[in-house]
Amino acid sequence: MNVAVIHGPNLNLLGVREPDVYGTVTLAEIDERIRALAEALGVEVTICQHNSEGAMIDAIQQAGCEADGIVINPAGYTHTSVAIHDALKAVPVPAIEVHLSNILAREDWRQRSMTAPACAGVIGGLGADSYLLALRGIVALVEAGR
Amino acid sequence: MNVAVIHGPNLNLLGVREPDVYGTVTLAEIDERIRALAEALGVEVTICQHNSEGAMIDAIQQAGCEADGIVINPAGYTHTSVAIHDALKAVPVPAIEVHLSNILAREDWRQRSMTAPACAGVIGGLGADSYLLALRGIVALVEAGR
Amino acid sequence: MNVAVIHGPNLNLLGVREPDVYGTVTLAEIDERIRALAEALGVEVTICQHNSEGAMIDAIQQAGCEADGIVINPAGYTHTSVAIHDALKAVPVPAIEVHLSNILAREDWRQRSMTAPACAGVIGGLGADSYLLALRGIVALVEAGR
Amino acid sequence: MNVAVIHGPNLNLLGVREPDVYGTVTLAEIDERIRALAEALGVEVTICQHNSEGAMIDAIQQAGCEADGIVINPAGYTHTSVAIHDALKAVPVPAIEVHLSNILAREDWRQRSMTAPACAGVIGGLGADSYLLALRGIVALVEAGR
Amino acid sequence: MNVAVIHGPNLNLLGVREPDVYGTVTLAEIDERIRALAEALGVEVTICQHNSEGAMIDAIQQAGCEADGIVINPAGYTHTSVAIHDALKAVPVPAIEVHLSNILAREDWRQRSMTAPACAGVIGGLGADSYLLALRGIVALVEAGR
Amino acid sequence: MNVAVIHGPNLNLLGVREPDVYGTVTLAEIDERIRALAEALGVEVTICQHNSEGAMIDAIQQAGCEADGIVINPAGYTHTSVAIHDALKAVPVPAIEVHLSNILAREDWRQRSMTAPACAGVIGGLGADSYLLALRGIVALVEAGR
Amino acid sequence: MNVAVIHGPNLNLLGVREPDVYGTVTLAEIDERIRALAEALGVEVTICQHNSEGAMIDAIQQAGCEADGIVINPAGYTHTSVAIHDALKAVPVPAIEVHLSNILAREDWRQRSMTAPACAGVIGGLGADSYLLALRGIVALVEAGR
Amino acid sequence: MNVAVIHGPNLNLLGVREPDVYGTVTLAEIDERIRALAEALGVEVTICQHNSEGAMIDAIQQAGCEADGIVINPAGYTHTSVAIHDALKAVPVPAIEVHLSNILAREDWRQRSMTAPACAGVIGGLGADSYLLALRGIVALVEAGR
Amino acid sequence: MNVAVIHGPNLNLLGVREPDVYGTVTLAEIDERIRALAEALGVEVTICQHNSEGAMIDAIQQAGCEADGIVINPAGYTHTSVAIHDALKAVPVPAIEVHLSNILAREDWRQRSMTAPACAGVIGGLGADSYLLALRGIVALVEAGR
Amino acid sequence: MNVAVIHGPNLNLLGVREPDVYGTVTLAEIDERIRALAEALGVEVTICQHNSEGAMIDAIQQAGCEADGIVINPAGYTHTSVAIHDALKAVPVPAIEVHLSNILAREDWRQRSMTAPACAGVIGGLGADSYLLALRGIVALVEAGR
Amino acid sequence: MNVAVIHGPNLNLLGVREPDVYGTVTLAEIDERIRALAEALGVEVTICQHNSEGAMIDAIQQAGCEADGIVINPAGYTHTSVAIHDALKAVPVPAIEVHLSNILAREDWRQRSMTAPACAGVIGGLGADSYLLALRGIVALVEAGR
Amino acid sequence: MNVAVIHGPNLNLLGVREPDVYGTVTLAEIDERIRALAEALGVEVTICQHNSEGAMIDAIQQAGCEADGIVINPAGYTHTSVAIHDALKAVPVPAIEVHLSNILAREDWRQRSMTAPACAGVIGGLGADSYLLALRGIVALVEAGR
Repeated sequence: MNVAVIHGPNLNLLGVREPDVYGTVTLAEIDERIRALAEALGVEVTICQHNSEGAMIDAIQQAGCEADGIVINPAGYTHTSVAIHDALKAVPVPAIEVHLSNILAREDWRQRSMTAPACAGVIGGLGADSYLLALRGIVALVEAGR
Repeated sequence: MNVAVIHGPNLNLLGVREPDVYGTVTLAEIDERIRALAEALGVEVTICQHNSEGAMIDAIQQAGCEADGIVINPAGYTHTSVAIHDALKAVPVPAIEVHLSNILAREDWRQRSMTAPACAGVIGGLGADSYLLALRGIVALVEAGR
Repeated sequence: MNVAVIHGPNLNLLGVREPDVYGTVTLAEIDERIRALAEALGVEVTICQHNSEGAMIDAIQQAGCEADGIVINPAGYTHTSVAIHDALKAVPVPAIEVHLSNILAREDWRQRSMTAPACAGVIGGLGADSYLLALRGIVALVEAGR
Repeated sequence: MNVAVIHGPNLNLLGVREPDVYGTVTLAEIDERIRALAEALGVEVTICQHNSEGAMIDAIQQAGCEADGIVINPAGYTHTSVAIHDALKAVPVPAIEVHLSNILAREDWRQRSMTAPACAGVIGGLGADSYLLALRGIVALVEAGR
Repeated sequence: MNVAVIHGPNLNLLGVREPDVYGTVTLAEIDERIRALAEALGVEVTICQHNSEGAMIDAIQQAGCEADGIVINPAGYTHTSVAIHDALKAVPVPAIEVHLSNILAREDWRQRSMTAPACAGVIGGLGADSYLLALRGIVALVEAGR
Repeated sequence: MNVAVIHGPNLNLLGVREPDVYGTVTLAEIDERIRALAEALGVEVTICQHNSEGAMIDAIQQAGCEADGIVINPAGYTHTSVAIHDALKAVPVPAIEVHLSNILAREDWRQRSMTAPACAGVIGGLGADSYLLALRGIVALVEAGR
Repeated sequence: MNVAVIHGPNLNLLGVREPDVYGTVTLAEIDERIRALAEALGVEVTICQHNSEGAMIDAIQQAGCEADGIVINPAGYTHTSVAIHDALKAVPVPAIEVHLSNILAREDWRQRSMTAPACAGVIGGLGADSYLLALRGIVALVEAGR
Repeated sequence: MNVAVIHGPNLNLLGVREPDVYGTVTLAEIDERIRALAEALGVEVTICQHNSEGAMIDAIQQAGCEADGIVINPAGYTHTSVAIHDALKAVPVPAIEVHLSNILAREDWRQRSMTAPACAGVIGGLGADSYLLALRGIVALVEAGR
Repeated sequence: MNVAVIHGPNLNLLGVREPDVYGTVTLAEIDERIRALAEALGVEVTICQHNSEGAMIDAIQQAGCEADGIVINPAGYTHTSVAIHDALKAVPVPAIEVHLSNILAREDWRQRSMTAPACAGVIGGLGADSYLLALRGIVALVEAGR
Repeated sequence: MNVAVIHGPNLNLLGVREPDVYGTVTLAEIDERIRALAEALGVEVTICQHNSEGAMIDAIQQAGCEADGIVINPAGYTHTSVAIHDALKAVPVPAIEVHLSNILAREDWRQRSMTAPACAGVIGGLGADSYLLALRGIVALVEAGR
Repeated sequence: MNVAVIHGPNLNLLGVREPDVYGTVTLAEIDERIRALAEALGVEVTICQHNSEGAMIDAIQQAGCEADGIVINPAGYTHTSVAIHDALKAVPVPAIEVHLSNILAREDWRQRSMTAPACAGVIGGLGADSYLLALRGIVALVEAGR
Repeated sequence: MNVAVIHGPNLNLLGVREPDVYGTVTLAEIDERIRALAEALGVEVTICQHNSEGAMIDAIQQAGCEADGIVINPAGYTHTSVAIHDALKAVPVPAIEVHLSNILAREDWRQRSMTAPACAGVIGGLGADSYLLALRGIVALVEAGR
């Protein structure tokens, strides 16, 4: 089983960016934890990060061909991107949306997710653990679908 | 470590109620899986279900005294209950909100969560697995806070 | 055939409460008229009144087991209760929503019914007759469904 | 006692039009059932159907002169017609609004009734039975007013 | 100079219809006062009343050919009719919109005028005098435009 | 009979200010026409202009003591002033609101009048003639009330 | 194959009405171009124009019996008519909605189409060509459906 | 004279719950101050606290029979409860709504009070003093009404 | 201790103005009661009334220098004045907002207070008693802050 | 004459992506039909597809230099992209917006087009035929403009 | 060249008022910096501050006669004043609106500027520097217009 | 000191694009003026222009490493981009947002800035001068922060 993990815009700055909101863990550290859990679960992960909406759509389409499930944090595009919504709907593999912070407890315009309705589920507010739980979740989902 | 699991209104009908939306698993089966995972993780769980908003507030207040963390599915009260929001804020233990279905992909009025801003995180859309992941999440959260 | 008639909050004060809006008939008098018509139609009725949202949900769930149809006046919960909506959807018997006054001719926030979309039909504005017509309606509906 | 029954636009297509929403009963069959019940109740009915908003207003005004009560299904004009609202308010006889389907369970823009606030009551969601219950209701209302 | 006076739906019931809102003067009496003032001002008036939106559009189009100005009370169509708005814009003669009551002091949905933006001016709240002032106004407007 | 004419903010710049919207007539010229008509109608007029909301309230209160009716153009305060609304309601004499331009055909925020519901009627869109017709209207209104 | 072309209110004034918005071509000239193209495509067309909403509904119902497809420009009724929406849904033949101007680039209230959701497609902004393209489109649609 | 003081959900946690918002005074201390003032004013008080909406309605109905006035802090139910609104309207004794914090200075959804329109007055933002002033207020109100 | 009492626009008309809403007590009588209570409490009061928003701001700024607390009834400016909000925030003394009527039970646009969020608390609906309770409240607040 | 055809995000997945909404035709097949019609009409077409909003803007700017008209399907960017709107306005050649499905009959947020107001016209709902009709339309538009 | 600098309500309290939002610089210090820059640029400045909306309108009208450009900080009137908007539009000299804080990053109701659309430009968020840049900007604008 | 100037989408077309809105100055000419002023102020500038949102985020992140301040015109992305907002918040250098036109005086959807709340200040409406003033502003801001 192969799971694609797709990080959205500005997540490459994690650990530096607004640490009171997003914590001091870096993206590299999160990726390391994801890889360790994947190995423990016996699945492969492919991880990428993009600042461009178009590049994220490309990554989703590629995951639709090469992966069995998607873990995606659309970050700033969460709230507005119909095109990412459409990409997630267009590919034949399930996705789980992930957020480091609890977006429902933040600014009004961060409380709406345009992309979540195209996902099987959403996990948010638990920092790096959001990714790890989503990895467990997508593995269970893919296995259940076989 | 003790975790309180609080099920909201109508969840006692699971398996019977709109199975195309909520699946055919019964609440008893979910509780069994929660207990099995709790045992595996070495934590205790206390599980209850209430149709009454006031009874849910009582349960949250009790959990604030006796438990280290809360996993709560407010069900129909999710979208309107300021009083449950206030109860979750009033107790000194963290909570994770759980939904069986992906509420962001459903009716407009189900997409707003009044209670989620009072929780540390939210997990939804993954059926019974939502509870299991939330249990893992709350355990990690409580351990990190020690 | 058995029909459950469920009265919502404050309806026990009928006859006393704002008589210019709700009339001077008491709930006991309405119940008597309901029972008389039920007898004439050859059906049984079970009647209850609750001020608590949770108790109304319990009553709906019980009716789902023991009755063939529901006549419900959710009163003040009409406009906000997702949980009663969910209970009505969760039980395998049809319901008709009843209002004494014409809620569409009153305050803005009384014009929206959160619970009506979970019912087969709605009858309002005709005072105690709303209940009697709803009883006739639910009997016809249950018979048609057999 | 004379009751005017006024059918609104497109109801002449009943039975053909979207049968999954409106059923397979034709308007002629509904009218027959209305006439039968009227005879049983000992009242006269005058029935008409109009596609034109202006013609419906004319019919309401005429009913204001010649009938004791009105049963009206404004159909597509329900949601927008101030002019029909005004006509119903202008005539000295009570009216009950009828809908075949449960408009509160349909599209957003079908959930608002512009005309209902000018009626004594509203009955919806019960197919042809909506008309029959409304006929009973208006007869009771007129008798009570005498 | 010829002025077309166009009365909208239900105005034929004036004097009978909701006298606390619209007064006890009949439309015939208003028309008489309009004709008397027209004679005093030395202009001709053509007066009609229609319950149908389409007939009102026909009347506006006719006035566009045969009259020099229009005084129109769109009544219930005021608040919704794009088609009357378009008709008033389409004809090459100016119009003044008239209301018997002060629509800005009434229900929310009566406070918006869809048709007024297509008129030169609006006069409301002064009962039958609204028409007389509008007649003076349109005469001045047409004379100023010559 | 005495009529108070109260001009609101910036009307002292008439003739200079945005002549494509408000015309080239000056306030002095309008006042002259008002005085001429008043003389013709046999009534006295007191005219003032104020840029300050508080001064307008003072003027309304004074008119409540000394005049029989008010013609007021609240100009920029039309759309927001609850205090002027309250002043107009507080005084025992009727008022007619006047606008030079047709505010219903302009920007969204100019289409709402906060002050009009406190007036007997509204006349707008007819330039200086709006004032003259309002003077006629208020005179008729006061006479009718005697 | 027979196609019904239905023109809505005020389109009979084309060429005269606001030529900067709608152009100088008359409806007769458009109809001539429609007939020429119909002949070239080997289909029959029946063309009508109505100012009345009720008459448009009649025409749609008639087209449902006698034609294979509908090209309709609801004009001013586009934005408000639930009844025309219902008529288009009620008939068993497909329709394409046409607009001369690009309604999405105009006033807010012209940007919503109430009737378009009941049509197979929409073509707007291309003047008389909108009709010709719609004719080609409906012919293709009907042929594809055979 | 007897005054019922009704505390809403989560107020039993006062002193513990979010002390930066609600202060460190406990409910027992507030009740003691209320009782002291009541004695000074020569009136009796009956005090209760409920987490359940239904229990609050019961308490209001009981107060309607046994007390002369009500001081109520609906807490989290303030913002949504139509049923408590209806209960307050249904009983024949006046009520004053109380809030510890200034709800108009907090989250958007806390600024609306559904229950206040059913009360004679509202006092908020003054901590425990809000209750004491309300007690003085209700005593004055009841005395004035005698 | 010195308390500034600031009355807003039109309050000078109290007793005359809409007595069904505001009662028949005059402002002079209210001021007398305020002065009597102040004397009883051993504090000084300075009372003023202004129709002008700017004058109210001046009074607030002056109170910021010379008084220890403010009791303010912004009347018609309550609902719109950002400038009074800013003035109340800018001065280093606490304020309590007062209303004679229960603004939450009146027109929609009277239910929002722009100025209350800049005050410590709000008291409304209790007529002249609102002022007396506010005086007690502000004295307690100032003493607690010492 | 040269026409640029610009396909937006995810259209490269056509035939695979949600075939119940978008059909089973692939983008290659649509392009073939476009090229065949272009040849028949004697015009050249340049076709491209982009997932990136920036790349679409580049393509529009290039078309502004090298083509005579644009046929564009902005897909997911239709509903949000101000930048594509601005690009279409910035280039000196006309554009027609195309949609495969009828966006006015879909989700609320798909019913608004941000880009259409910058186009001459819009064609939607007719599948691949939408493109062919748009090609005919843009050719007619360019020829008319010469 | 003469530039009028107009400070709005409460700005006289600068340095004292909410220093965490508005800084500790006083208005006198800002005025000094403005005068110094004016001298360096070779232009005259006239500076005033007003708490009253009416006085600000007077100042704008005076500037329209005596100055070549306006730098205005409408402060609390920014968000609501149609009358100041109208004054700025009515005078024949350009204006630049200035804010000390970044109003777009503050409360919702501070993010809308009613007055900015009547100005040539807006500068905000840069403290006292906002004024200095605005002075440079208006000088450049006036020079460019000569 | 180094300042990054980042131009958003379509600004490369300046001088050609809608000259009545954006003027006839080209981007090259603006850049020249910026470089000249930078030299005069003794600071370095790095200037880039991007049509892609992702590329703008890259540029902001790069500026966060290499520059001391940012001057950014997000153009079409101003109104929707959460991702650019987040990038500006994530970097440790201040930014000033610039607009050529006065966006507050344009279409509704152009009046909201999603990105401005993440900037220190905003300057708009002054054409190329907006950039020059922003350069002065950012230099002062950086110097003040040292």
